[in-house]
Amino acid sequence: MSKKKHIAILGASGYTGFELLRILASHPRAEVMAATSRQYAGKYVREAFPALARFYDNLAFSDPAEFKSIKDAVVFCALPHGASQEAVPALLERGNTVIDLSADFRLRDPGVFKAWYGEHKAPGLLKEAVYGLPELYRDNIKDARLVANPGCYPTSVILALAPIAKAGLIAPGSVIADSASGASGAGRGASLDTSFVEVAGGFKAYKAGGHRHTPEMEQEVSALCGNKTAITFTPHLLPVSRGILSTVYAGLAKSAPGAEVYGLYKEFYAKERFVRVMPLGKFPDISQVRGANFCDIGVYVDEARSRVTVVSAIDNLVKGASGQAVQNMNIVCGLAEETGLMTPPMGY
Amino acid sequence: MSKKKHIAILGASGYTGFELLRILASHPRAEVMAATSRQYAGKYVREAFPALARFYDNLAFSDPAEFKSIKDAVVFCALPHGASQEAVPALLERGNTVIDLSADFRLRDPGVFKAWYGEHKAPGLLKEAVYGLPELYRDNIKDARLVANPGCYPTSVILALAPIAKAGLIAPGSVIADSASGASGAGRGASLDTSFVEVAGGFKAYKAGGHRHTPEMEQEVSALCGNKTAITFTPHLLPVSRGILSTVYAGLAKSAPGAEVYGLYKEFYAKERFVRVMPLGKFPDISQVRGANFCDIGVYVDEARSRVTVVSAIDNLVKGASGQAVQNMNIVCGLAEETGLMTPPMGY
Amino acid sequence: MSKKKHIAILGASGYTGFELLRILASHPRAEVMAATSRQYAGKYVREAFPALARFYDNLAFSDPAEFKSIKDAVVFCALPHGASQEAVPALLERGNTVIDLSADFRLRDPGVFKAWYGEHKAPGLLKEAVYGLPELYRDNIKDARLVANPGCYPTSVILALAPIAKAGLIAPGSVIADSASGASGAGRGASLDTSFVEVAGGFKAYKAGGHRHTPEMEQEVSALCGNKTAITFTPHLLPVSRGILSTVYAGLAKSAPGAEVYGLYKEFYAKERFVRVMPLGKFPDISQVRGANFCDIGVYVDEARSRVTVVSAIDNLVKGASGQAVQNMNIVCGLAEETGLMTPPMGY
Amino acid sequence: MSKKKHIAILGASGYTGFELLRILASHPRAEVMAATSRQYAGKYVREAFPALARFYDNLAFSDPAEFKSIKDAVVFCALPHGASQEAVPALLERGNTVIDLSADFRLRDPGVFKAWYGEHKAPGLLKEAVYGLPELYRDNIKDARLVANPGCYPTSVILALAPIAKAGLIAPGSVIADSASGASGAGRGASLDTSFVEVAGGFKAYKAGGHRHTPEMEQEVSALCGNKTAITFTPHLLPVSRGILSTVYAGLAKSAPGAEVYGLYKEFYAKERFVRVMPLGKFPDISQVRGANFCDIGVYVDEARSRVTVVSAIDNLVKGASGQAVQNMNIVCGLAEETGLMTPPMGY
Repeated sequence: MSKKKHIAILGASGYTGFELLRILASHPRAEVMAATSRQYAGKYVREAFPALARFYDNLAFSDPAEFKSIKDAVVFCALPHGASQEAVPALLERGNTVIDLSADFRLRDPGVFKAWYGEHKAPGLLKEAVYGLPELYRDNIKDARLVANPGCYPTSVILALAPIAKAGLIAPGSVIADSASGASGAGRGASLDTSFVEVAGGFKAYKAGGHRHTPEMEQEVSALCGNKTAITFTPHLLPVSRGILSTVYAGLAKSAPGAEVYGLYKEFYAKERFVRVMPLGKFPDISQVRGANFCDIGVYVDEARSRVTVVSAIDNLVKGASGQAVQNMNIVCGLAEETGLMTPPMGY
Repeated sequence: MSKKKHIAILGASGYTGFELLRILASHPRAEVMAATSRQYAGKYVREAFPALARFYDNLAFSDPAEFKSIKDAVVFCALPHGASQEAVPALLERGNTVIDLSADFRLRDPGVFKAWYGEHKAPGLLKEAVYGLPELYRDNIKDARLVANPGCYPTSVILALAPIAKAGLIAPGSVIADSASGASGAGRGASLDTSFVEVAGGFKAYKAGGHRHTPEMEQEVSALCGNKTAITFTPHLLPVSRGILSTVYAGLAKSAPGAEVYGLYKEFYAKERFVRVMPLGKFPDISQVRGANFCDIGVYVDEARSRVTVVSAIDNLVKGASGQAVQNMNIVCGLAEETGLMTPPMGY
Repeated sequence: MSKKKHIAILGASGYTGFELLRILASHPRAEVMAATSRQYAGKYVREAFPALARFYDNLAFSDPAEFKSIKDAVVFCALPHGASQEAVPALLERGNTVIDLSADFRLRDPGVFKAWYGEHKAPGLLKEAVYGLPELYRDNIKDARLVANPGCYPTSVILALAPIAKAGLIAPGSVIADSASGASGAGRGASLDTSFVEVAGGFKAYKAGGHRHTPEMEQEVSALCGNKTAITFTPHLLPVSRGILSTVYAGLAKSAPGAEVYGLYKEFYAKERFVRVMPLGKFPDISQVRGANFCDIGVYVDEARSRVTVVSAIDNLVKGASGQAVQNMNIVCGLAEETGLMTPPMGY
Repeated sequence: MSKKKHIAILGASGYTGFELLRILASHPRAEVMAATSRQYAGKYVREAFPALARFYDNLAFSDPAEFKSIKDAVVFCALPHGASQEAVPALLERGNTVIDLSADFRLRDPGVFKAWYGEHKAPGLLKEAVYGLPELYRDNIKDARLVANPGCYPTSVILALAPIAKAGLIAPGSVIADSASGASGAGRGASLDTSFVEVAGGFKAYKAGGHRHTPEMEQEVSALCGNKTAITFTPHLLPVSRGILSTVYAGLAKSAPGAEVYGLYKEFYAKERFVRVMPLGKFPDISQVRGANFCDIGVYVDEARSRVTVVSAIDNLVKGASGQAVQNMNIVCGLAEETGLMTPPMGY
């Protein structure tokens, strides 16, 4: 049996941190050596997360201030946006490979970054960082020191558009992404806005026209299209814990039979382990990907109006965050990409 | 005190039937004299609907086959699509005013009706029926014998578009309506598709491109625009009991400042009792209209791209069905339009 | 038309405050003149609570520090436990009638109060305060200056036990109250424990053996029994917004036929407007009382083991808090007890 | 690598069938060779259960009428109660080991079986069948031909009581089991009672005093106690998909310090892989066992009243059904008991 890869998780007490711990608990080639948390420093993992009792029973959260590095480890940064910029340079210097789950290294253009997030503290790394969407950047990820793990909404929208974007089929200015996310997407923290009573039984749009994931989608879809593509993006808050469904509309640059468009999807994702293109006429449900690293995609083509409706479903904490991060780790470490990730979704 | 209007409800055991009973229970000027139900015939209302115990305590469901007419009554038809066509002509003949909650009389063009629902059995009434959206057809409703109560999705989409449609601001072919409905929209019946375990924790699109509410939206929005307007409509199933949120996208026919577009909404609905235009920058939540007859509307204008995003929220069983039906009844009976309908939403 | 009673609400930005506003919005004989909130001072009610737009459109929250009194008003105190003790004496001095929704005046014995909550700041009022459960204390409430509105769990448990307690049928030491409450029972505030993701899909017991509502139940059930009765009480947290279901077990002091025990319930509550005893063999569901002031009760008698299982359902924010408070206000003001409260439950 | 055990699943289209497929998909030593379903006969597994796409991609449901036997296979019977009795004898004759998930072989006494379910069709097998609760019957299961997989409620209640029952600490007639189950416990079928709108936002007791799981609990708890022990059992329906929480009350036969009672639990379950006794003062949450084979247990002792409150949480489809069935399969096949079952719970 080959040696296990050593892992550290910075900022392990949020939902993405929990999810990394949950997924890695049954990963045969990885071993979590350290998990930091300001809030839970000194507490056993099982105390903060009763679900994980019987796993990690000797692992306690450590103080992030005291964490330096673990030789040869892969470090998952699950720190808040802004904090990663400060932590990552030192980790790279000490030789760690970093998979960063924040937004800090996803935008390649420092100007765009500044417009949405403010001045970057390590702008030199923006170019080096590889955008960690394996379906698009697998070869680059292999050799990366720093992987910028994609945002949850962008993962669902980019995968929904990639085949027709790549094929040059998207009419300029025609893309509308209408997405809905479960409440875990807002992070784990005390807030009236995400309290049970405020969310349950409700459904609403928020930040129409101004969500920070927009430039990330535009960057990647533009790259696929080969020209700058604007996207109208409306996120919504779903009264569920996990899951993102994106219903993405695009005008077709030229008319094409439905079967041909659908064929592009089947072909583009033919060898992908984690993208499941639904049978024609079927649409995905977030419950059918819950807990697993799949992105399910359904395609409808309105031939008369030359418009396509693509629906994609992911678990925002898995393919939208921690599962994709482990997928990236597998690639970086030269493991089979699906190692530790082939557990079926919960379904119900 | 003036006399109470006599009411009959045909098909009173579904969710819209329940909701009519719930709303009319505190209506000061209406009295339910009969409620029919094949399934519950002979049972007391309180037995079928424990929520209504202490209201209607002497009212039992009657067999629809035995129901003929009640002199001068307003009859609410909450029968399944198709069954209304057969029941309504006789009711009109006997002098009843009919408010029909099915889809049977909503489409004015028999050809369009046939394409989506099959041959109509009383095509002559299609022209006479008044489309029961008071915000658009108040004056016609006043004198109607037969009111075709709008569909739930169409109510939310038409109200979201009316001000800019009327102003001639909608770019042809640009409308996309992305809607999500709670499970009560599927009706009250035993079905695996709407069972708790299949719906809870899920979210999915269904009938993309093929939902029967599409022609109804197109008919009304086209009438407002003054020319035939196609709508791309995608309904979704929300894991909540009540509520529809429609996020509607439209290109603007000519560029206009956001404040001007928003002003059109404020003006169009200035005197409407049941449409609440949110402050600029705010978007509605279905929980804030639950149980009440309001339609809340939020508007966002992307000036750079000349595109508008309008979000509307209704309770599908109230403004989307039974509440609007009672609003129509009030108009038909010459009562103040809000009579019995000014209960605040549940909120939480 | 007679004059409307003037109302002030102190601490109006929590869920019970919202619910008072919601209920009073359609109360024909009450008018809210002031609503205080530290958090929302200066904001319009409709800004904090979009559900209430079109109601109270000219009412803004006022700073509690600046509130003194309104002549002849009924003041609802929806302040946190502890704060009421400080506010109430001055209000009484200025001649206001006070209905206090906190726990501050519910326990008659200062020693018991101290054991559970600490030293009382106005112990002299503990004796004067009337326990506001109209089904037990209607006559005392009529003349009260200070009504201590019951806790949500105690309301559900005491009403479940009253008929057999009063009849001397409860075997000493035999009472177990197993209750479950929706998340609004924890109040409106930012807290990880009540965040959507932590609560949704979960169900758990909390504070077994140590919940502060226990002495309140014991005080009232002991008074009915005529001797000190201990209660084992386990609260649970339900993944719903509203509702309490209490399943209460008691040994019978002497064996009795089921029909006889059931008869005690029918008789005890025969004239009560807000307690609905279900048909024998039927049990209540919290959804069937949601939004309304009812307490639904189902009774099962295990004759062989001389044990009774009583299940009661209330909306914790209505009969468990604000609805009962308005019921008390009606009594205090000499109005018909059901004024403004006869809206049917939401049902679904 | 040793050979995989061949598996057949009869009645694979319900929730327990789905769950067997889900769990076995990542079981390293089992291979599903056949899955029968009347409803889905001829359909691929991935068509009926989109969650399972990419697993079992060549497996189609077969017609149960055509299923005979698979040599040396372990057969999981997930047929409805009553149907197992008819299918099992032939399977045993053909040499299959059978793990039956119905209630057909759980009661050892044919008289008790008859009283609750009617005449048994293979009464001779009632004695041979081993009750498949590994924590109690591990040694017998090893050699069993026919394992009667326990009911979901009984699993949660028996595990909650076993340590004190075995220690002779339960006062006769004192046990009350108050349980709540997610809606998947009602099975997968079209029914108004389990439709989303009827269940969501609700909570209710059902079958108080008459649930068929009662004799099963009484059989096992009596065996542990060494004398006939009656149990008062009230099941409730939770608005969640998965999970059972049982809050079990028992009088102590003799007073004992809380620490001593708690120690019994720690000791009794010290070597159990799937029972997690919570730290003293902590109580379990069904969300923390969702999707996994654990039973989490919390204990509270009211020393003054010599009464214990034990709370246990399981996923009704896993430890309450299919996970436990696989645990039994592992034992029967001589595999390590946790093989394929050590995936952490979903947590959120």
